[in-house]
Amino acid sequence: MNLHIINGPNLNLLGTREPEIYGGRTFEDYFAELQNKFPGIKLSYFQSNIEGELITEIQRTGFSHDGIILNAGAYTHTSIGIADAVKAVTAPIIEVHISNTFSRETFRHQSFLSPVAAGVIIGFGLKGYELALRSLIT
Amino acid sequence: MNLHIINGPNLNLLGTREPEIYGGRTFEDYFAELQNKFPGIKLSYFQSNIEGELITEIQRTGFSHDGIILNAGAYTHTSIGIADAVKAVTAPIIEVHISNTFSRETFRHQSFLSPVAAGVIIGFGLKGYELALRSLIT
Amino acid sequence: MNLHIINGPNLNLLGTREPEIYGGRTFEDYFAELQNKFPGIKLSYFQSNIEGELITEIQRTGFSHDGIILNAGAYTHTSIGIADAVKAVTAPIIEVHISNTFSRETFRHQSFLSPVAAGVIIGFGLKGYELALRSLIT
Amino acid sequence: MNLHIINGPNLNLLGTREPEIYGGRTFEDYFAELQNKFPGIKLSYFQSNIEGELITEIQRTGFSHDGIILNAGAYTHTSIGIADAVKAVTAPIIEVHISNTFSRETFRHQSFLSPVAAGVIIGFGLKGYELALRSLIT
Amino acid sequence: MNLHIINGPNLNLLGTREPEIYGGRTFEDYFAELQNKFPGIKLSYFQSNIEGELITEIQRTGFSHDGIILNAGAYTHTSIGIADAVKAVTAPIIEVHISNTFSRETFRHQSFLSPVAAGVIIGFGLKGYELALRSLIT
Amino acid sequence: MNLHIINGPNLNLLGTREPEIYGGRTFEDYFAELQNKFPGIKLSYFQSNIEGELITEIQRTGFSHDGIILNAGAYTHTSIGIADAVKAVTAPIIEVHISNTFSRETFRHQSFLSPVAAGVIIGFGLKGYELALRSLIT
Amino acid sequence: MNLHIINGPNLNLLGTREPEIYGGRTFEDYFAELQNKFPGIKLSYFQSNIEGELITEIQRTGFSHDGIILNAGAYTHTSIGIADAVKAVTAPIIEVHISNTFSRETFRHQSFLSPVAAGVIIGFGLKGYELALRSLIT
Amino acid sequence: MNLHIINGPNLNLLGTREPEIYGGRTFEDYFAELQNKFPGIKLSYFQSNIEGELITEIQRTGFSHDGIILNAGAYTHTSIGIADAVKAVTAPIIEVHISNTFSRETFRHQSFLSPVAAGVIIGFGLKGYELALRSLIT
Amino acid sequence: MNLHIINGPNLNLLGTREPEIYGGRTFEDYFAELQNKFPGIKLSYFQSNIEGELITEIQRTGFSHDGIILNAGAYTHTSIGIADAVKAVTAPIIEVHISNTFSRETFRHQSFLSPVAAGVIIGFGLKGYELALRSLIT
Amino acid sequence: MNLHIINGPNLNLLGTREPEIYGGRTFEDYFAELQNKFPGIKLSYFQSNIEGELITEIQRTGFSHDGIILNAGAYTHTSIGIADAVKAVTAPIIEVHISNTFSRETFRHQSFLSPVAAGVIIGFGLKGYELALRSLIT
Amino acid sequence: MNLHIINGPNLNLLGTREPEIYGGRTFEDYFAELQNKFPGIKLSYFQSNIEGELITEIQRTGFSHDGIILNAGAYTHTSIGIADAVKAVTAPIIEVHISNTFSRETFRHQSFLSPVAAGVIIGFGLKGYELALRSLIT
Amino acid sequence: MNLHIINGPNLNLLGTREPEIYGGRTFEDYFAELQNKFPGIKLSYFQSNIEGELITEIQRTGFSHDGIILNAGAYTHTSIGIADAVKAVTAPIIEVHISNTFSRETFRHQSFLSPVAAGVIIGFGLKGYELALRSLIT
Repeated sequence: MNLHIINGPNLNLLGTREPEIYGGRTFEDYFAELQNKFPGIKLSYFQSNIEGELITEIQRTGFSHDGIILNAGAYTHTSIGIADAVKAVTAPIIEVHISNTFSRETFRHQSFLSPVAAGVIIGFGLKGYELALRSLIT
Repeated sequence: MNLHIINGPNLNLLGTREPEIYGGRTFEDYFAELQNKFPGIKLSYFQSNIEGELITEIQRTGFSHDGIILNAGAYTHTSIGIADAVKAVTAPIIEVHISNTFSRETFRHQSFLSPVAAGVIIGFGLKGYELALRSLIT
Repeated sequence: MNLHIINGPNLNLLGTREPEIYGGRTFEDYFAELQNKFPGIKLSYFQSNIEGELITEIQRTGFSHDGIILNAGAYTHTSIGIADAVKAVTAPIIEVHISNTFSRETFRHQSFLSPVAAGVIIGFGLKGYELALRSLIT
Repeated sequence: MNLHIINGPNLNLLGTREPEIYGGRTFEDYFAELQNKFPGIKLSYFQSNIEGELITEIQRTGFSHDGIILNAGAYTHTSIGIADAVKAVTAPIIEVHISNTFSRETFRHQSFLSPVAAGVIIGFGLKGYELALRSLIT
Repeated sequence: MNLHIINGPNLNLLGTREPEIYGGRTFEDYFAELQNKFPGIKLSYFQSNIEGELITEIQRTGFSHDGIILNAGAYTHTSIGIADAVKAVTAPIIEVHISNTFSRETFRHQSFLSPVAAGVIIGFGLKGYELALRSLIT
Repeated sequence: MNLHIINGPNLNLLGTREPEIYGGRTFEDYFAELQNKFPGIKLSYFQSNIEGELITEIQRTGFSHDGIILNAGAYTHTSIGIADAVKAVTAPIIEVHISNTFSRETFRHQSFLSPVAAGVIIGFGLKGYELALRSLIT
Repeated sequence: MNLHIINGPNLNLLGTREPEIYGGRTFEDYFAELQNKFPGIKLSYFQSNIEGELITEIQRTGFSHDGIILNAGAYTHTSIGIADAVKAVTAPIIEVHISNTFSRETFRHQSFLSPVAAGVIIGFGLKGYELALRSLIT
Repeated sequence: MNLHIINGPNLNLLGTREPEIYGGRTFEDYFAELQNKFPGIKLSYFQSNIEGELITEIQRTGFSHDGIILNAGAYTHTSIGIADAVKAVTAPIIEVHISNTFSRETFRHQSFLSPVAAGVIIGFGLKGYELALRSLIT
Repeated sequence: MNLHIINGPNLNLLGTREPEIYGGRTFEDYFAELQNKFPGIKLSYFQSNIEGELITEIQRTGFSHDGIILNAGAYTHTSIGIADAVKAVTAPIIEVHISNTFSRETFRHQSFLSPVAAGVIIGFGLKGYELALRSLIT
Repeated sequence: MNLHIINGPNLNLLGTREPEIYGGRTFEDYFAELQNKFPGIKLSYFQSNIEGELITEIQRTGFSHDGIILNAGAYTHTSIGIADAVKAVTAPIIEVHISNTFSRETFRHQSFLSPVAAGVIIGFGLKGYELALRSLIT
Repeated sequence: MNLHIINGPNLNLLGTREPEIYGGRTFEDYFAELQNKFPGIKLSYFQSNIEGELITEIQRTGFSHDGIILNAGAYTHTSIGIADAVKAVTAPIIEVHISNTFSRETFRHQSFLSPVAAGVIIGFGLKGYELALRSLIT
Repeated sequence: MNLHIINGPNLNLLGTREPEIYGGRTFEDYFAELQNKFPGIKLSYFQSNIEGELITEIQRTGFSHDGIILNAGAYTHTSIGIADAVKAVTAPIIEVHISNTFSRETFRHQSFLSPVAAGVIIGFGLKGYELALRSLIT
């Protein structure tokens, strides 16, 4: 089974950016732990700050992988293009957010991705990625 | 560890009601499976169609349990009182929805509970309860 | 043929409450007249001020009766839960309002029930129940 | 007793237009049946696609008839002028819609006529005209 | 003179729930003090988390008492049914809120009860009940 | 100097329709008085309930007359087509309303005609036509 | 007969301010002409840039004069206080605007004064004051 | 092959009305050119200022023609009735606008016809009719 | 203890203005009664129709008095400047309204002052000032 | 004559993505056909999923080409930057959409590009590119 | 060169009012420093809490000075009258705000002045006045 | 001291694009002048049309520089991702706009950046960059 994690803008700053909201750990660190925990799964990871590169990555992997875990960051709330890519591919795509977007600014309450996602997991910190992974493997 | 599941209005009809959206299985059936799968956890379950009884149940269990898994059904979108109860108690409360509420009617897109929930899990069918349970035990 | 009438909050005050809007007659009085007028029909009646009890009553009778006449009173405008129950059962449900809700406050213009009702009858006073009954028997 | 039915735009296409919504029967056919069913009532019928002709017809008949059954079709949702005519005349006017306007596009949910109608009947198919007629004769 | 206090959802948690907003004292404690302070007045008290029970209580006491002090809690902002009950009875009903609802979330700024209340008292802590009582006795 | 008065839907009912709002006098009666009062002016008059006929009449007279006094009635609030005709012709067009549209229903507060009218006169009863006439002749 | 003209903020700049909208003539100049044209009328004039002084002036003259012509300038669109004063006094008050407020910025389309004015005259340039005067004397 | 052009209100003024927006040429002139350019096509033309006549014309020709080119003018933005007629007939209907409606007033940005049209062509001047014609013949 | 009452626009007309809403008594008369009833309190009073003078008065007295009772009249609904002054001073400020603002026009439902007031008392007639006074002295 | 086609996000998936909406043919295939059909025109083609690259491409070609055919895909509805580029260059730019955006989700009804495009063609499938091309060459 | 600073309501409290937002220094103190720093410039200063006095001051100085630095405080968000004065005079007027109005309450995000100001400077504390001054002298 | 200027989409066209709004000078030209004027400051410059590259550039320089001057162009109004980057880094970031965005289209009035910027400077032409620079160095 091969799964792919796609992270959007500013998630490369994890561990540095607003630690009271996003925690003090880098994603690379967490990703290594996740790979160790699920040795039987081929788990890959991609990050970009560029909306169009996220679209391209979804297109590139969305037909060949068994599932995608997508945290599109700020583009979640404004990108119709990413949502169109999600709809266009065949892999189930799980939407994840580290923080509770509903307890933050109003403009973070709307997601173009949620209506087309196979499932939505919000507010569990980095643990959300593991929950998403589990949803895909069982 | 003791966890409590609280289900809101019409979820007692699970298996009967709109099976194309909610699936064809009763909750009791699924609940038994869940108990079997997690034998080390004391797992209880409550359902009511009455908003105020859901409030009372959250008050009754929200100080003594290690976590609550709450699917408030239709009250999710209109009940400030349930949200107030969630905020008032000490147990972490995970909001779960069986269907993808964001791909349905607009009035199901807003949740008074999400901003005060410890986490939100949407659209995974009954599996969402298990994911919520896992988020509480790890 | 068996039909069921379900009345919502404050309709137990009929004859007392705002008679210039709702008329000066109790529902019990009218119900007796209706039974007399249609002796061949098994006609029953339920009233509650509690939203969840209305949901339960629709669930209890909505699979076994030939039709339900529902005046959900104030819950008409706010209850997604009652609408979900209406959708979940198999009996056709006719929405009735005694007063013309469209000539009153703006918040009475919206009904969560109308989109899922088998028909809507508004503004005919108590006579609306008879019209609803006739719509079900012919 | 003399009653008048006024039908608005595109209702002349009944039987042809979107039969899954409006049914496969012409209004003329139904009207003949209705006359047969209520031989004691002088029942007349008018149709126009022109908003102003509907206004003129309401003015022409609204002082001399015992009631008008009005299905203003698409003008229901946009015509203040027809509503003004309804208010101006003395006959009670019953608003009828064949389909359930509340389960269709949002722009069909608002009616300028409802606040000034003597009663509103929605979603019963052609049977709605008979219910309106009965509301006027009893 | 007999006056009745009706408290809505979560007010049974007073002293426990968000003490920085609602204070650290139980309502029972305060109620005893209030009775002592106004020995000449017959003062009673009711609390429920269930919207419909609040409606029923207003109906039960609203014709026989000289005044009702109503803190409907979260239902203030969503319940048309309670407002209808307030309008239906003859006793003057004073709306009270412990916290300043206008300095909290937007959804607490709207009250269905205020337009039909005999007076509104907001933001004085528990002292608001005494002010309401005084407004009724002078 | 030749001036033209164009009246829209339901203004043919003047004297009959809602006299507490529009007064008890027919327009023909008032028009005769106006002609007598301004004998040096060639004053003509047109009324229709049909929006498109009002457009055609504005087109027919709007290039040859010295001014048009237009009371488009209910179409004022919904007709872009009449506004387009007003903009297309060369004669100055004065918008008149008998009643104070701003103290009536919200939907009467907006006028598509006002932005393109040469002047607007509202709420003076029938006297508004004379004021409009005076504005054109001086 | 004594009539009073009240002008609001920036109207003291008439003749200087945006002449393409307001014309190149001072109000004092126009006022003198108006007095000459209607020698039988006692006509007075007041201007202030201060909202509260306009309120005070309406209070001071609104019980003793036969009519007030009010151009409240920018306060038209924001002042509930001036509207309250208009409603409080006994003299009929005519609202006048020199420019066509409806063909300008959206925030000039709303008037708090129009619903309580005895009549509204918009877009006739300075001639609007004369039309208002005529409306009061005939 | 037979195609029909239907023009709505004020398009009879083409060449006269706001030439900076609509150009200086009459439609008759352009229509003749179009007929010459496509001699193999039976091309007819209808214009009316009356909404209901446009509905009737769509009904009359929409079952027998191979395509309709519809410029409903101002009714585009307000007519549900014309949209209903477009949906009711079998011929493909192309919506055309001479000017770029999206660069004009906000109320011209919405079209009730676009969702039910077979295609939409906007802003090409009179050339848009030819493009529409070509879309139907290839 | 010294308390100050500040009244806003048109409250100088009390007893004259809309007596069915505001009662038939002058404020001076009521103020004298209030002073008599609470002889131990130094009670002063200020009224102005000018928004900026109300701001200045709050600044002048808001640091030296033990409390201010503020009825800002129409400015309640539009003045950010008065709200800023309330926030800037140290004395607790109680917002009072004589009439029930929530049962009147929509624009009276919003208050810029309520979120920053120490308490809000609405709809008790002149008695509201006494309740506010009592809230400050106990 | 040289013309340029610019396609936005996900249009590289044409033939694969939602064929019931976008058809089953690749754009490259269609483009070859178009080149064959118009041999006298120098026709080039660019696609990118990245908003900023579309801006750069419009800047690069918008001064040297005789026209651009732009299908900005999902960015149509959110990109002010592409619209700014369209306005900044000198070549006429035709906006094309394959599907009828107005019969899909509400967020596809708004286009930032339409107000600044030289023309808009919507809903003709791939044929829309040819119509756009024709509009530029005649 | 002569420049004028105009400050609006509550800015006379600078140093006292909400120092965490506005700082702990009086404006007089800062103004003296500014005069010292720019000895070649004739710099004057005016403050008022009264909207109309700000209008009058802009009128008084806006034709004779080389520039005005305007911090209209709370009136920024509600005063059309001040904006009209800014537009009416010839001096360039720079809008300044001490705090970042965009990170505060929503009602501080809108400014009637910004569209007519020669420039806008927000959020630099008192230093904003110096930046505005520099913008005018270079 | 080292400062960085970041310019967004279409600002590379400065001097070419809409010179009546943005002026006729290239940014490179202006940048050279700015460097000459402030020789003691290490001033660098970056431009991109790609939103994600702007995010990356803010991340790259926002921890090491003493300040950033950011004109995000069209992304100002739509990019949550850039605002998140601004919040994530430690350097103060000044938002600059060349034109007065508040006197242009409504969609340019909102900025996601302003609430998180250290200061905002709008409408001074290219001089705005110098003012921003000065705000950072003093």
